[in-house]
Amino acid sequence: MGGPARFITFEGIDGSGKSTQARRLAEHLRAGGHDVILTREPGGSPGAEEIRRLVLEGEPDRWSAETEILLFTAARRDHLEKTIRPALEAGKVVICDRFADSTRVYQGITRGDLRRTVDKLHALMIGREPDLTFVLDMAPDTGLARAKGRNGTEERFEDFGVAMQARMRAGFLDLAIEFADRCRVVDADRSEDAIAAEIAALIDGVLA
Amino acid sequence: MGGPARFITFEGIDGSGKSTQARRLAEHLRAGGHDVILTREPGGSPGAEEIRRLVLEGEPDRWSAETEILLFTAARRDHLEKTIRPALEAGKVVICDRFADSTRVYQGITRGDLRRTVDKLHALMIGREPDLTFVLDMAPDTGLARAKGRNGTEERFEDFGVAMQARMRAGFLDLAIEFADRCRVVDADRSEDAIAAEIAALIDGVLA
Ligand SMILES: Nc1ncnc2c1ncn2[C@@H]1O[C@H](COP(=O)(O)OP(=O)(O)OP(=O)(O)O)[C@@H](O)[C@H]1O
Ligand SMILES: Nc1ncnc2c1ncn2[C@@H]1O[C@H](COP(=O)(O)OP(=O)(O)OP(=O)(O)O)[C@@H](O)[C@H]1O
Ligand SMILES: [Mg+2]
Ligand SMILES: [Mg+2]
Repeated sequence: MGGPARFITFEGIDGSGKSTQARRLAEHLRAGGHDVILTREPGGSPGAEEIRRLVLEGEPDRWSAETEILLFTAARRDHLEKTIRPALEAGKVVICDRFADSTRVYQGITRGDLRRTVDKLHALMIGREPDLTFVLDMAPDTGLARAKGRNGTEERFEDFGVAMQARMRAGFLDLAIEFADRCRVVDADRSEDAIAAEIAALIDGVLA
Repeated sequence: MGGPARFITFEGIDGSGKSTQARRLAEHLRAGGHDVILTREPGGSPGAEEIRRLVLEGEPDRWSAETEILLFTAARRDHLEKTIRPALEAGKVVICDRFADSTRVYQGITRGDLRRTVDKLHALMIGREPDLTFVLDMAPDTGLARAKGRNGTEERFEDFGVAMQARMRAGFLDLAIEFADRCRVVDADRSEDAIAAEIAALIDGVLA
């Protein structure tokens, strides 16, 4: 990490507790007097939320992987311009539930060349990495069991199955090595409070 | 042009007669026994038409130029995969009302660096140029006068004004020099029949 960790992301497999811990960290930082924005991907700005609907609703084969990456990058660009950058420039802490790492892992697992496409598009159109990324790590079956019961109409990416989740877990752990300077792997197979406490301690050291 | 001219596009300023001449050429080729697909951009496939709505409806400043280019490229990728390539592979002639050249000119006119962004995205995600492009050339005021009366809800790009249309005209003419091997400039300030006859003669030579 270069400067103070003000752009913080949560990554990890389905049901690993990203949304829960992102919310907990926002509460913790607000209690400490920080101005915090809690946001998510895909989405996080009005335009990006519309693109999110286009990507997540409908048939599984509605878009090719390449078109999907373009749509995710378009949504991310809008999110960055309209929500993330203005908040960072106003001195706020930005906590984001998933970011580019999710796209890297999801696309890279299906085809290696897609990971390179994601990276090239990221370099060209996004060019911003988080200051700090929490990778919530846990066994895929536990995550899948937790994730059940949160389904709405956004079903295109559900039900990957345990084998796929296991590959994603490995993908996120690889990414934590690749981007070791900004990634912290957290054991997510513990109580919500225990995980929140570890993350809070880590953040307090960095933001002090 | 390398092989036979089977992927044909129409380009030019607003109201220059692209849609009219694309339709006329399709009729001409069908009458000559060719299997023809007439399509358009942005749009041309169910997914791309949905992206088109996202781009063309709403406030003029709804998307930044960069996000807009990403959305256009996503739509073009879908159009290419779902409509253009399958038709070409089935031996059909594809006539497309606007394609990548429109994006190059529209974006390049506002900011030079955007033209480079368009080109990089095109090289990375599209990688296909038409075999033959008709650039319909005419005075901007004539084009603007013709274009009036075709407005619906897609108003984000209307009313650029004569000065802007003049810059676009110059942009299309520059492009016809840059891509001289595939572009044919056609004087569009003539009767519909005269233009259609010139284009038909040109095509008959090429497709024979
Ligand atoms: N440490 C924990 N122990 C047990 N259950 C938890 C824990 N953390 C979160 N949960 C529960 O597990 C479910 C999934 O949690 P959450 O939505 O935070 O995961 P997620 O990583 O955001 O999932 P997704 O990838 O599907 O968005 C929720 O019902 C949540 O209440
Ligand atoms: N050669 C012509 N002479 C006079 N009017 C014409 C001619 N060609 C087309 N028109 C008329 O001009 C109007 C614009 O034509 P058309 O829609 O084909 O242009 P276009 O280039 O597709 O415009 P846009 O860029 O707005 O889609 C239509 O009403 C059409 O009937
Ligand atoms: Mg979540
Ligand atoms: Mg038209």
